[in-house]
Amino acid sequence: MQNDFELLASDQHSKARRGRLKTAHGVIDTPAFMPVGTQGSVKGVSPRELCELNAQIVLGNTYHLFVRPGLDVIKHFGGLHNFMSWDGPILTDSGGYQIFSLAKLRKITEEGVQFQNHLDGARAFISPEIAMEIQAALGSDIAMVLDECVPYPCEYDYAAKSAELTTSWAKRCKAVAASLRDAHAAHSAAATKRLLFGIIQGGTFDDLRRASAQAMVELDFDGYAIGGVSVGEPEEEMMRAVESAEPFLPTHKPRYAMGLGTPPQMLQMIARGMDMFDCVLPTRLARNGTAFTAAGTLNLKNAEFALDIRPIEENCACETCRQFSRGYIRHLIKAEEILGLRLITLHNLHSYLNLMSQARTEIENGTFDQFRKAFVAEYKTRDAIPVE
Amino acid sequence: MQNDFELLASDQHSKARRGRLKTAHGVIDTPAFMPVGTQGSVKGVSPRELCELNAQIVLGNTYHLFVRPGLDVIKHFGGLHNFMSWDGPILTDSGGYQIFSLAKLRKITEEGVQFQNHLDGARAFISPEIAMEIQAALGSDIAMVLDECVPYPCEYDYAAKSAELTTSWAKRCKAVAASLRDAHAAHSAAATKRLLFGIIQGGTFDDLRRASAQAMVELDFDGYAIGGVSVGEPEEEMMRAVESAEPFLPTHKPRYAMGLGTPPQMLQMIARGMDMFDCVLPTRLARNGTAFTAAGTLNLKNAEFALDIRPIEENCACETCRQFSRGYIRHLIKAEEILGLRLITLHNLHSYLNLMSQARTEIENGTFDQFRKAFVAEYKTRDAIPVE
Repeated sequence: MQNDFELLASDQHSKARRGRLKTAHGVIDTPAFMPVGTQGSVKGVSPRELCELNAQIVLGNTYHLFVRPGLDVIKHFGGLHNFMSWDGPILTDSGGYQIFSLAKLRKITEEGVQFQNHLDGARAFISPEIAMEIQAALGSDIAMVLDECVPYPCEYDYAAKSAELTTSWAKRCKAVAASLRDAHAAHSAAATKRLLFGIIQGGTFDDLRRASAQAMVELDFDGYAIGGVSVGEPEEEMMRAVESAEPFLPTHKPRYAMGLGTPPQMLQMIARGMDMFDCVLPTRLARNGTAFTAAGTLNLKNAEFALDIRPIEENCACETCRQFSRGYIRHLIKAEEILGLRLITLHNLHSYLNLMSQARTEIENGTFDQFRKAFVAEYKTRDAIPVE
Repeated sequence: MQNDFELLASDQHSKARRGRLKTAHGVIDTPAFMPVGTQGSVKGVSPRELCELNAQIVLGNTYHLFVRPGLDVIKHFGGLHNFMSWDGPILTDSGGYQIFSLAKLRKITEEGVQFQNHLDGARAFISPEIAMEIQAALGSDIAMVLDECVPYPCEYDYAAKSAELTTSWAKRCKAVAASLRDAHAAHSAAATKRLLFGIIQGGTFDDLRRASAQAMVELDFDGYAIGGVSVGEPEEEMMRAVESAEPFLPTHKPRYAMGLGTPPQMLQMIARGMDMFDCVLPTRLARNGTAFTAAGTLNLKNAEFALDIRPIEENCACETCRQFSRGYIRHLIKAEEILGLRLITLHNLHSYLNLMSQARTEIENGTFDQFRKAFVAEYKTRDAIPVE
């Protein structure tokens, strides 16, 4: 397979990279933020709004879609793109993370994971092979290998055993992905271009992270993800997990830091060589009335905003800030009007996507490191951000 | 004051009228449907979407806005138009209907109504004069007189006494509206153009409806509303309430049938000489998964729609129907995704607004009566529509 990732610029003062990833449904400029479309919808947002926000890719959660509406429904509609009416790139996770965090009565064996789903308790089994088949049926542009995501904290021995299992599963994912690609090649050009990313585990242990990275790289994936981060560990541990693995990753493949984070965390991760991010914070916090700004988060429920005629963020180019005041949005949130969370969601997604756009420009200009330091220094988390 | 209502065409076979009402914030083509923006937002819909739907006017609920965020807040933002970022016409009700249906511990006297609001139980008092002052502060283009809306069923004596009270209050509203208009003329052009509509009450009694209409017309308002309909009475009673009053209304003033209805009801009301409608059904039912079509309502929660690749309504020009399937929308509603109710809300509002647009064209073409009869015959209410 040709190389789908092009490295356009590298920062001189950090490991930040500016790249471009080609997929069957379009190009993704990196560093990239991927809004999370858990159940086939980025919460509160329409596909048209995602286009207007310049989102270049969305993430779909395999576990959620597998449980509801179920694969038969999505196959009937010709895949997730058609089903949700989004014709840009889609990355799907393997379902592993949600099986370990949401499902009940899990039993992990070398073969795969047995579980009961969180909705109606129906039993199901997902193996590396099944995870690949599901993602092929969803028709995602980037698929992820099935991995075991260990909790924090986690003992060394379990983390080691689990990382080995993830490697063994990754090998099987790669094999079945290749045969699925061949099988679908005849009737789907997109299928032949489906990318597959390996996932690096290893908990908080440097040597396990390194070994996991080396094992994944040996299997030669289209990209590499750092998994098992942002699971409740201190921020230094999160950074160390990335730092331990990154030196062993090839420069010519994209790197994806899974499930994070706050705006400063993403910039810190970019400085450590990461290219792609996904996070539910912009949409989840919006539903609670919390908005992201360059100065930190604002809880718009607070009484101080009742008479505030300013937009959420001065000079913000998003549709919300061009048209609506903090005071009005506060009223909507207090009155439980859906428009309130919609307006904050749009602002927050713009904020995340715009930060990535800024990062790309700063990398191109050779000014990323100053930008990062200034941004991190300026950013104050005024409101507690819940651990995901 | 000049006549703001222009009658463009009248149907030969019914009392249907095609008109145009000028307000300080723009023109309203009648027959017109007014989406309900209870708390300063049409539920789930942005002002931009209202423009795209060709909504020419929205309704604001004085009671709700008075209780939350409160008049001081809305005054601080320069009125309701600025607050909610909607620069088209706004009609505000007087607050009476909600005081009688939502508030607690009401005490009605000739002077006005004492009540405790439904949110925090705070005591308040609204008189005809205060209702006018509140609506002036909101800055609405069309204000309504304070009325007492009697429940169904209601004894003759109470309905008679109540209609008299409404007339006496209407007189005071008209007097204070005139003085407010003069007081605000210096610094607000919109204030000088604010229209005031009288409200006809009288329960289910023909002679009371007639007397109420005559009394209101004698007071000479800018328009006349039929109140106390769609409060639980049978449909025939609703039609009779309109038929009893309509012959006594001047042709050169707009007529507003308050708080209704289903699509066939609106066409029947147009045939009886009504020009304006407001109803929460398109937005309220959408939140429950129910969509309006020319063939009746569809409950998209039903399993029959799970694999349905058709739009809500074939040949519908709305954004929802151009892009999304019933099956996808069903999934969103079942998964409690906000996008689901958004998509149905947009379709339902389009459906209501488009019906009014069709009615206008049919009246102009002299074909309204056939259109109405065919539409009513075709329309099946497959799902129960809750009484408001």
